[in-house]
Amino acid sequence: MSLTTASALDAAKEAKAASHVLATLPASARNDALTAIYDGLNTAKDEILAANARDLELAKQAAADGKLSQSLVSRLDLGKKGKWEDMLKGILDVRELEDPVGKVTLRTRLDDGLDLERVTCPIGVLLIIFEARPEVIANIASLAVKSGNAAILKGGKESTESFVAISRVISAALEKTQVPNGAIQLVTTRDVIPQLLDLDQHIDLVIPRGSNELVRYIKSNTKIPVLGHADGLCSIYLEESADPKMAAQVIVDSKTSYPAACNSLETLLVQESALSTVFPAVAEALSAKGVELRCDEASKASLSKTNPSLTVTSSQESDYATEFLSLTLAVKTVSSLQEAIEHINSHGSHHTDAILTASKEQAEMFMNAVDSAGVYWNASTRFADGMRYGFGTEVGISTNKIHSRGPVGLEGLMIYKYKIRGGGQCTLSYGEGEGKRAYKHERLL
Amino acid sequence: MSLTTASALDAAKEAKAASHVLATLPASARNDALTAIYDGLNTAKDEILAANARDLELAKQAAADGKLSQSLVSRLDLGKKGKWEDMLKGILDVRELEDPVGKVTLRTRLDDGLDLERVTCPIGVLLIIFEARPEVIANIASLAVKSGNAAILKGGKESTESFVAISRVISAALEKTQVPNGAIQLVTTRDVIPQLLDLDQHIDLVIPRGSNELVRYIKSNTKIPVLGHADGLCSIYLEESADPKMAAQVIVDSKTSYPAACNSLETLLVQESALSTVFPAVAEALSAKGVELRCDEASKASLSKTNPSLTVTSSQESDYATEFLSLTLAVKTVSSLQEAIEHINSHGSHHTDAILTASKEQAEMFMNAVDSAGVYWNASTRFADGMRYGFGTEVGISTNKIHSRGPVGLEGLMIYKYKIRGGGQCTLSYGEGEGKRAYKHERLL
Repeated sequence: MSLTTASALDAAKEAKAASHVLATLPASARNDALTAIYDGLNTAKDEILAANARDLELAKQAAADGKLSQSLVSRLDLGKKGKWEDMLKGILDVRELEDPVGKVTLRTRLDDGLDLERVTCPIGVLLIIFEARPEVIANIASLAVKSGNAAILKGGKESTESFVAISRVISAALEKTQVPNGAIQLVTTRDVIPQLLDLDQHIDLVIPRGSNELVRYIKSNTKIPVLGHADGLCSIYLEESADPKMAAQVIVDSKTSYPAACNSLETLLVQESALSTVFPAVAEALSAKGVELRCDEASKASLSKTNPSLTVTSSQESDYATEFLSLTLAVKTVSSLQEAIEHINSHGSHHTDAILTASKEQAEMFMNAVDSAGVYWNASTRFADGMRYGFGTEVGISTNKIHSRGPVGLEGLMIYKYKIRGGGQCTLSYGEGEGKRAYKHERLL
Repeated sequence: MSLTTASALDAAKEAKAASHVLATLPASARNDALTAIYDGLNTAKDEILAANARDLELAKQAAADGKLSQSLVSRLDLGKKGKWEDMLKGILDVRELEDPVGKVTLRTRLDDGLDLERVTCPIGVLLIIFEARPEVIANIASLAVKSGNAAILKGGKESTESFVAISRVISAALEKTQVPNGAIQLVTTRDVIPQLLDLDQHIDLVIPRGSNELVRYIKSNTKIPVLGHADGLCSIYLEESADPKMAAQVIVDSKTSYPAACNSLETLLVQESALSTVFPAVAEALSAKGVELRCDEASKASLSKTNPSLTVTSSQESDYATEFLSLTLAVKTVSSLQEAIEHINSHGSHHTDAILTASKEQAEMFMNAVDSAGVYWNASTRFADGMRYGFGTEVGISTNKIHSRGPVGLEGLMIYKYKIRGGGQCTLSYGEGEGKRAYKHERLL
């Protein structure tokens, strides 16, 4: 692992070379490296927390000067209750995951003695750009090693001391393993991000871990594929047959359980015929949780009759394109399922959207027609999460239309290659005509 | 389907809207549309061939003036023996393929009454940019409709008349089906490619069908993912234990069966210890087929002793980075498997590479360590092809490291979405602590 002196290109080249070695290591060697990283961090706890304290000191000063937000300072603190332990446990959790490398996903007998196999393999070199949270380094290094990928890490400048301390330990730990040291590359020089984003010959996938702004910046400034989503504008369609109590609890969970999350609800579409039947209980429950409703004319007028004591504001068109990330909810009346689907497909961010209805038919139609990574029937949008899906880990959530979509587990860090094992076969021996052979194309798996 | 008047943005928006309808149609509706396209083209044969004749006339004139290559003129000719019939048969072949939409690839019981499903679905809007061959329109339109994707087609200007005639027929045919007319968008205005490549909000995947230059241009000028490969620099490593006769026939097939193909052999790496044992028979066979060998010092010196009658030229370093696409082969001596692997990973294009050896151990090591879409043991590199792999069709060959790699069938035009069917579950009900539920994460599929 190189430290501050590494140029972007050197780091990328070294990572690429290391990725070729890493790709050939058995699971045991990759798991042993994770154990070594765990042991190393465990032993170096005091040293790392001391480095982290220095970062914190500077950050607190910056916050006092109004140059940094309090929430960033808080995210920086590795000494916070449970954080260190969670970081270490995360490494062991990743180690225990099923090996994603070398899975045969297709096997076809092209002809006798000529077999085709599709086998999972690492993508190559990952570039992970993250902001304040220093524990992400350990998490991402573990995921990379487990999946056989090399990784280039670029952290936020606020966590530089913690970052350097942790990566020194990881580097020393890898020295004793079969995983090449260059497999985890650290870049700490400033302003290196544009250079890294330009290296599409050496870097195969960028994973931003941070704010929407970071993701948006990266997506706009690289040709390398980016795994992530810049926006999470999730909607729920409340259909007339939905049970009011169920609807209220699902919508409250979707909106209020963690309003700043990307899978939180931002727009509620209410079927016109549900305005005076199901919607009142929902509005009441949201209001009780402190949610501000921004309503269109029809829903506002209806609420003024059914829930006269509620105060709601009038929505503007821009509210239906806004990711509030707070206790504000845009409400819009739609006449039909079709209108709801069209609204979501044109206004949403293709992240996660739900329908609340007693009708299986309406639900299935909604789930087929809404063009989003997650489409739910009678469940909170906040289930969109790798841990909740049972993936054991989450690399990120993607709204891409290729490769990986929705919560991404280790699988998202894998691609495949085709192997053919033959006995000297030539393509000119196959085809039509005298003496030519025909392909068998017998599917073995 | 819009004709010449459609702007790039209009076409993309209309295609996106159509894609949302198309995604909900059952296989029967998509297959019926293919039947309608087939019938329409069948009926309009004379009209289309007349349009094609007008294109041909202009092209022949341009060729006579030295402005167009003869091979392009030849590719343009739809009236060439078998071409029309192949084009029509291709539509029916695609129709008969297994439906790629709606396959459940994962099913997990998150909790009782809360099931997660991962289901294949179309990607959305494809942009297909192709050069002269007008029959590609029918092929691509079929693949798009079959896979539930909308497509924007941009053909080369030399085939404009054929292109307009064919797409008029497709458009009229779709009118009678459930597939929205906007699902296949034709763009014929000139200079529209840069505008299209800019529409990453509406277009999900670009598929270039044409020269390496076209692919390279597109890859360098868009943020939209591109399915394809700009180069096919394939290598074979000839190991000392390979049977000389087998080696000669595989190398001759890889190099000479279709030298202009992307999966043809360009570099032969010979193990030093094989120079005087296996290599002479190989060199002899290649020479007999008219292949020019560009040899490094060691292989040249060896051949001057073993095959004194052969004329070979001396290689330059640049020959090992050249895709000759002709009967020229670069030959390099390497000391070991490791050196061969490193040469291929650093000089090749990650397309298809092979090892010829009697050693299973060497072969498996080669196939794991070479970072290419296809890695073969004792088989011709020219097996890298969707039809030969048994995919029934080939959308393209990809050297990307995400989504699709190697020959790509219909699967490469698919992504997935996650569906959750619940009964009003909320995320706050799960977790640790009193009264909280635990996820079951029971894998059902």
